[in-house]
Amino acid sequence: MDRLPKCAANYTPLTPLTFLTRAASVYPDRISVIYGRTHFTWSQTYERCLRLASSLHSLNVRKNDVVSVLAPNVPALYEMHFGVPMAGAVLNAINTRLDANNIATILKHSEAKVFFVDYQYVTVASEGMRLLCDSLGARILISLVIVIDDVDLPKGIRLGKLEYENLLINGNPNYVPFSDDQVLDEWDPITLNYTSGTTSAPKGVVYSHRGSYLSTKSLVLHWEMKSEPVYLWSLPMFHCNGWTFTWGVAARGGTNVCIRNTSSEDMYHAITAHKVTHMCCAPVIFNILLEEKPDPPPHPVEIMTGGAPPPAALLEKIEKLGFHVTHCYGLTEATGPASVCEWQKKWNLLPIHQQSKLKARQGVGVLSLAEIDVKDLQTMVSVPRDGKSVGEIVLRGSSIMKGYFKDEEATRKAFKNGWFLTGDVGVIHPDGYFEIKDRSKDVIISGGENISSVEVESVLYRHYDILEAAVVAMPHPFFGKTPCAFITSRSKFVTKKNDQETKREREIIEFCRKSLPHFMAPKKVVFLEELPKNATGKIQKFELRALAKTYLTSESTLHVKSIDQQTTTPRRYVPNDNNHQHPQREQVLANSRL
Amino acid sequence: MDRLPKCAANYTPLTPLTFLTRAASVYPDRISVIYGRTHFTWSQTYERCLRLASSLHSLNVRKNDVVSVLAPNVPALYEMHFGVPMAGAVLNAINTRLDANNIATILKHSEAKVFFVDYQYVTVASEGMRLLCDSLGARILISLVIVIDDVDLPKGIRLGKLEYENLLINGNPNYVPFSDDQVLDEWDPITLNYTSGTTSAPKGVVYSHRGSYLSTKSLVLHWEMKSEPVYLWSLPMFHCNGWTFTWGVAARGGTNVCIRNTSSEDMYHAITAHKVTHMCCAPVIFNILLEEKPDPPPHPVEIMTGGAPPPAALLEKIEKLGFHVTHCYGLTEATGPASVCEWQKKWNLLPIHQQSKLKARQGVGVLSLAEIDVKDLQTMVSVPRDGKSVGEIVLRGSSIMKGYFKDEEATRKAFKNGWFLTGDVGVIHPDGYFEIKDRSKDVIISGGENISSVEVESVLYRHYDILEAAVVAMPHPFFGKTPCAFITSRSKFVTKKNDQETKREREIIEFCRKSLPHFMAPKKVVFLEELPKNATGKIQKFELRALAKTYLTSESTLHVKSIDQQTTTPRRYVPNDNNHQHPQREQVLANSRL
Repeated sequence: MDRLPKCAANYTPLTPLTFLTRAASVYPDRISVIYGRTHFTWSQTYERCLRLASSLHSLNVRKNDVVSVLAPNVPALYEMHFGVPMAGAVLNAINTRLDANNIATILKHSEAKVFFVDYQYVTVASEGMRLLCDSLGARILISLVIVIDDVDLPKGIRLGKLEYENLLINGNPNYVPFSDDQVLDEWDPITLNYTSGTTSAPKGVVYSHRGSYLSTKSLVLHWEMKSEPVYLWSLPMFHCNGWTFTWGVAARGGTNVCIRNTSSEDMYHAITAHKVTHMCCAPVIFNILLEEKPDPPPHPVEIMTGGAPPPAALLEKIEKLGFHVTHCYGLTEATGPASVCEWQKKWNLLPIHQQSKLKARQGVGVLSLAEIDVKDLQTMVSVPRDGKSVGEIVLRGSSIMKGYFKDEEATRKAFKNGWFLTGDVGVIHPDGYFEIKDRSKDVIISGGENISSVEVESVLYRHYDILEAAVVAMPHPFFGKTPCAFITSRSKFVTKKNDQETKREREIIEFCRKSLPHFMAPKKVVFLEELPKNATGKIQKFELRALAKTYLTSESTLHVKSIDQQTTTPRRYVPNDNNHQHPQREQVLANSRL
Repeated sequence: MDRLPKCAANYTPLTPLTFLTRAASVYPDRISVIYGRTHFTWSQTYERCLRLASSLHSLNVRKNDVVSVLAPNVPALYEMHFGVPMAGAVLNAINTRLDANNIATILKHSEAKVFFVDYQYVTVASEGMRLLCDSLGARILISLVIVIDDVDLPKGIRLGKLEYENLLINGNPNYVPFSDDQVLDEWDPITLNYTSGTTSAPKGVVYSHRGSYLSTKSLVLHWEMKSEPVYLWSLPMFHCNGWTFTWGVAARGGTNVCIRNTSSEDMYHAITAHKVTHMCCAPVIFNILLEEKPDPPPHPVEIMTGGAPPPAALLEKIEKLGFHVTHCYGLTEATGPASVCEWQKKWNLLPIHQQSKLKARQGVGVLSLAEIDVKDLQTMVSVPRDGKSVGEIVLRGSSIMKGYFKDEEATRKAFKNGWFLTGDVGVIHPDGYFEIKDRSKDVIISGGENISSVEVESVLYRHYDILEAAVVAMPHPFFGKTPCAFITSRSKFVTKKNDQETKREREIIEFCRKSLPHFMAPKKVVFLEELPKNATGKIQKFELRALAKTYLTSESTLHVKSIDQQTTTPRRYVPNDNNHQHPQREQVLANSRL
């Protein structure tokens, strides 16, 4: 049977580009993209992608060249997910929240041959290119910068001669795409996504056609996304290519509703006007949806969330509003979501808060992975399924990235003994569902005990007055480290330290102690106007840790002591308590959660 | 980016075996298999498969060896879909409706190293092995024949020493399966399925791990099969490995309800007792379900049908009973269904009979295919999308078979210019959905016009009194060929030719003429007690064609003439009418529809 050869009929490269050719073939007249008053059908989208690919070819873009883009969720960015690889090139969608310096770093590292810039971002892009020229000691070829004007309401802003729509007009609708040329290998790169790099320089995660195809199909399946979805682009497409749903909506012949901003007004308007069925977002967007909810509430919408562990209390609130949440977990390196908290029918019988607690777990591996596990990295042995023993979450399968672009060292460190190391610490529950306890670097080791900052945060989120919470390690003379909570509050108040604040701090600490062992409750609560966040909206814990260090020798130490007097004795340091001690690790990975 | 290498973490072979390891890991305590009073959980099924694989290894089964099995839908056959490839071997599930001669042919051609036989089939299996010994001129090693006794109600029947459950007891539950050994290549064979071969010797279709994985995931997705399905095994597992749902139910962590017989009593009992959500079957099973429907009707069940074009009238009836039908089309060579008639919401507004007509079309390609098309085989040009122009349905993609085992000639003929030729003739409608008009060999060329036997049959099925219908070409002195209908009737009657029958024949011909051009209506209707069928339940049209030939010189000719007198003049032969003339083909492929 081994003599039966592969041929063009029975062995075709796996690539999400086939989702578009199929959509154009079998749903030619269905609406593919909506943006303002602009609509396209799948046959139009296909033609526009062909035109784009042919124009890129004319601009001398060749196989494996990088095409960068800085744009919000506009039709052009959607089309580039197909048009760029159809030219054999690699799409690099840059986070629009980055500053000029970051942009220059990425353009330099990726060696982008073409740079598309949405009209709204020409200032930061120009500044980025200026920095790039400075660093390269040369002038950048401005002819390769192409502005994307607003397709719905053109503004006329330019940065050089080229403009996206003009490029399409001059493109060839009969271009034979790269993927049809029998030259595509499914291991070829399709996109390059830079991690946010909270602790290190951004790393360029390379996806293959194969990995993207497999991940996309799995996620459509796990979300149980039926035919003809109407998908709202509330999640930036530059996040893991929209968690692969850029390609997934084409696979399902759905409609992409593009919006420039994720304001509650724009989102609710789109939901109602276009009868949105599906949307993705980080849990932080729930707050936006909850703050300005319409009356009456909108029709039920399927919402996939990830990027940070959603507090159970927040899940409960958003579901009460009529959204049905599917919770997933992933990383840029896993080509989007790697696990999903698959719902079990028997859980429907549980009280709602218990349901939310179950749903807040990260769940089970997606079908595109060969395996997902929680292991002791020293021994590579799986932890017991007791919901307590912590280890590192590790993955393997064909949806894992090819590696980090031009970074052999980081690639080598990320792959160990046939596994990809996520850098996330978790447990496996007896039912086989795993749960993240923390980023390995965010675990607080207090008196020899591991404290999950996520666990403490999830308790804080249950407090009516807390909008956002982040818990980090604060130095402690006796325990080594102890938890310190930074919060933003619903009720506005004077940040100056006063009696009222002390009272509120004590109240919150007491609140935590009702649900947590005392040693896990924060010993200090700091009220901030806003939590420090990076460009992807992730809380910058390293900044908070730096802040927390300043409390050691100040009044807070006394404060901590005074609280300690009221506690039961915390558990002491037990040097060889393997069940509770987190393995010391020299290397802390800086992978990027979704 | 090309320097980023494949490694064990990011490039794992695609294989449906991962669906079982995943199910055992994340749904360990869910019910995997129900058979009578016997229940297994996913962790038990996994262990049983490991034991089976280790025992096969002990029996000296090695990579690419064939393991044949002759069994109905019992747990052992389900387990073999994982256990056999876990030993590196290739599963060959033999159609239980075959006779001893067919069985001997398959055992000889496949060079099966082990032969599992369900206790109910020991007689025919023994006879098959006797024939095999005769043909090989040697005694077969009886030690490699293993009886599968009934796991629920053991009968004690043996054929040599070995028995399936004993084999498992002696197996090693800690066996390291072949797939875990890093030695599996996704192009390796996983199963060998013999086509029913209506016109030629059976051909052995070889599936790869890759193709099976891709096809399974696509079909679960297209059927929109949610988590925790309860799947009734009404479709034999020996048909394309149960249209891949042997693996698909594991992928979804579902429950397999195994039944030995597809009697209406057993099916309805299982549906009610186990709250069945999904089942597959050929349209012929609809008749069984309709004949003895329970009162009240069962809860709604998702039913996937294929294997023969379902008449719209039959679809309408079965859906009225509460079954929701998904219609698909495929062939053994396509690793199960290759297309699905994906429902469009706007069709819900149409009258029910129009909905059924739309649903009777074969639909759009599944996501595991790179492409599906209808082409003129002479020029390899796609036919226009007009719903009229006929061509051959062709496929390409990674879910297509590796080829025919030990048959290079047939493999070469099946693959042409990078396409797999289905041997089915169809049209593409303007909306992109394709529809089968016939097997290429079943097209009736009458006076230069192509008549689709399927189209005539679908009209016949609308007649209240017709249970089954098959239309074939009958020689005609003027038109060359003309349609002849063979039918089985609901109302029992004396088959002897008499006035009553002539009256009924005329009535049916008139009925057809109301919906068809006169030249397409049958010129002869023959009433049979039963239509000739092969082991897979497919109507043997070649037998009917032989029968139809006998009518040429008999009374039917006169009869045809007498009817002709009442007709408008049929369209004449137009030699170069390319739109209507089916391309003459020397080679008629004998592929096997699902």
